[in-house]
Amino acid sequence: MSAGTTGVVGVVGGGQLARMLHQAAISLAIRVVVLDPDPGCAAAAAGAERFDGTWTSADDLVAFANSGVDVVTFDHELADPDDLVRLEAASPVPVRPAPATKVLAQDKLVARTALEGRGFGIPAFAAVHDVAQVQAFAAEHGWPVVLKTSRGGYDGRGVWIVRDAREAAEVLAAGDGFMVEELVDIREELAVMVARRPGGSLRSWPVFRTTQVEGICTEVILAAGSPLTDRARALAERLAEHVELTGVMAVEFFVDAGGELLVNELACRPHNSGHVTMDSCITDQFEQHLRAVLDLPLGATEPTVDVAVMVNVLGGAAPWSAEDFADAVATDRTSLHLYGKGHRPGRKLGHVNAVGDSVEETLGRARKVAAVLGGSD
Amino acid sequence: MSAGTTGVVGVVGGGQLARMLHQAAISLAIRVVVLDPDPGCAAAAAGAERFDGTWTSADDLVAFANSGVDVVTFDHELADPDDLVRLEAASPVPVRPAPATKVLAQDKLVARTALEGRGFGIPAFAAVHDVAQVQAFAAEHGWPVVLKTSRGGYDGRGVWIVRDAREAAEVLAAGDGFMVEELVDIREELAVMVARRPGGSLRSWPVFRTTQVEGICTEVILAAGSPLTDRARALAERLAEHVELTGVMAVEFFVDAGGELLVNELACRPHNSGHVTMDSCITDQFEQHLRAVLDLPLGATEPTVDVAVMVNVLGGAAPWSAEDFADAVATDRTSLHLYGKGHRPGRKLGHVNAVGDSVEETLGRARKVAAVLGGSD
Repeated sequence: MSAGTTGVVGVVGGGQLARMLHQAAISLAIRVVVLDPDPGCAAAAAGAERFDGTWTSADDLVAFANSGVDVVTFDHELADPDDLVRLEAASPVPVRPAPATKVLAQDKLVARTALEGRGFGIPAFAAVHDVAQVQAFAAEHGWPVVLKTSRGGYDGRGVWIVRDAREAAEVLAAGDGFMVEELVDIREELAVMVARRPGGSLRSWPVFRTTQVEGICTEVILAAGSPLTDRARALAERLAEHVELTGVMAVEFFVDAGGELLVNELACRPHNSGHVTMDSCITDQFEQHLRAVLDLPLGATEPTVDVAVMVNVLGGAAPWSAEDFADAVATDRTSLHLYGKGHRPGRKLGHVNAVGDSVEETLGRARKVAAVLGGSD
Repeated sequence: MSAGTTGVVGVVGGGQLARMLHQAAISLAIRVVVLDPDPGCAAAAAGAERFDGTWTSADDLVAFANSGVDVVTFDHELADPDDLVRLEAASPVPVRPAPATKVLAQDKLVARTALEGRGFGIPAFAAVHDVAQVQAFAAEHGWPVVLKTSRGGYDGRGVWIVRDAREAAEVLAAGDGFMVEELVDIREELAVMVARRPGGSLRSWPVFRTTQVEGICTEVILAAGSPLTDRARALAERLAEHVELTGVMAVEFFVDAGGELLVNELACRPHNSGHVTMDSCITDQFEQHLRAVLDLPLGATEPTVDVAVMVNVLGGAAPWSAEDFADAVATDRTSLHLYGKGHRPGRKLGHVNAVGDSVEETLGRARKVAAVLGGSD
């Protein structure tokens, strides 16, 4: 092992998660190389090395794995699951998480099926190919129901709440690969981040309360005191073992009207809901993911503050001004994390972490910063 | 202002301080460009952009300033003070700190002279050119005395304790540009980091206790309770105003046998004694330096923990093994910061920050990690 480089992590995709993996990697003298066709991608803009190619090409994936990296991991869910299986077979370099685990974040039907009957609470679901099947499901679980594409949806895309057979038919006519789920009466949404090494040791972070607006995670709160904390962490850890996770994973839970925990989605990579760990926990999700995929001992996950929150910075109608930026950084006990992306209305340009003593005050501070940069303040 | 880049900071020198400036800059979408002749320098190895050239060339300094950066600042004290004056005259780009301030960290005689008679405690000193002048000084202040080269010394180089005229003559014969100082009976060493914007607003961090071994800062302790805290911070802040600081500065103090604070050295840049801020204060010295030189509002400096310590990782007899590295990262509540440098015995390869509740326990943990990597454990 050289003091100059302690490991080389190949990341499929050079978005903001790869950017923050690179930032964390600097402290441990780990090199991050991203597979991305865009020389201006968020990770390369922060100085991560780039291997020119794309995740839509199985050949590029294999060439990337054979380019001298110690392990291949992911910035996103976009690679084709079949290509990842081929990659795993074609290269001696480990893929972490393994394609058989990664697919649980890529295919909602596979994920539901993998968890069914294993003691994890999940919404009632079924694969559907025609309206009759949706009607049969609704006859049992009631309208409205949720139609989802099992693959390819994210940030609220690929999800429709339909009230009757006519609406269901419209959705089904527009694509294929659908599943149906009961519409859960959601009282609260929680997320648990968990990290696991190839050998099996694992650590989870405290539970986060998350707020989704139109399917996009917009706010995250880390605060002690949810009565479901222990149960959610235990479920997430058991799930990580069940799916043989390597790396970090986000487990998103619905809390239903009866107070039961239902597993909603999995993300087998660092995740927006875990950004809050960056300024509030001993080890953040990015350093932990690097440790896990390189099979290094995991770091402590305890929070160092009573309250921490994360609010996404979405592009406003116009780019922020120099005065807006100065206002944003002037706010005490908040940390800005920008992704180096050009402005576009609604685009995730960064996030704000804030720490404090009360949820209300801390959240207010973080929202104010996000609003100044998003132009809505 | 573009969301993609919020500012471009040019750093003279691409060592570990530039590396950590780059790491901090990623969060604010600031680009860091270093002037360094070495493509493998610590900052470039972490992905900072590099302008090929050297700080020993006034022409390179001017070309660097005119290459599109918003401001020029420093990784080290090695540029010639006269070249910096020429740079300031030749380029419209601001140099921060200004050469007239920077020279206080580059020339010990200039620094002592600038503070003399201004109410800052400093050791008695004099410029000396021959042994007779040393003898005259010693007649007033007693042997032994300290001989120093006013320029070019660092990490203990360029400093000699001489017991008599014969030893003084030996030192003086080997060079020029000497000054003499009284030998202070040092009870304790403290450092205060302070940051100041061009407009004058400033913030200091809590006082650190520092340990030097053979002139090299090896350990730093951030802990409440020194009775000199308020006085040292106030002195450092007044000093920052007096020298019209822009950026961050380390003020190193001796506490003498009578409990008086004497200003020892200044470093007008992020400094080894401020590394502890990375994992223990709301805003660390690197982000703060970027804010200060770009004339952005300064961040809060409050510590987020009761006790934090920093221990340098120096190269041992042999490079660390993969097992050593795994042992090092396995230690809870410690954060490793490596500089991406190749191994050499005694070389500063990184530092360990640790947080905790008691100084003894926290320091023990950090020392253990540094020792594992330094091969002496």
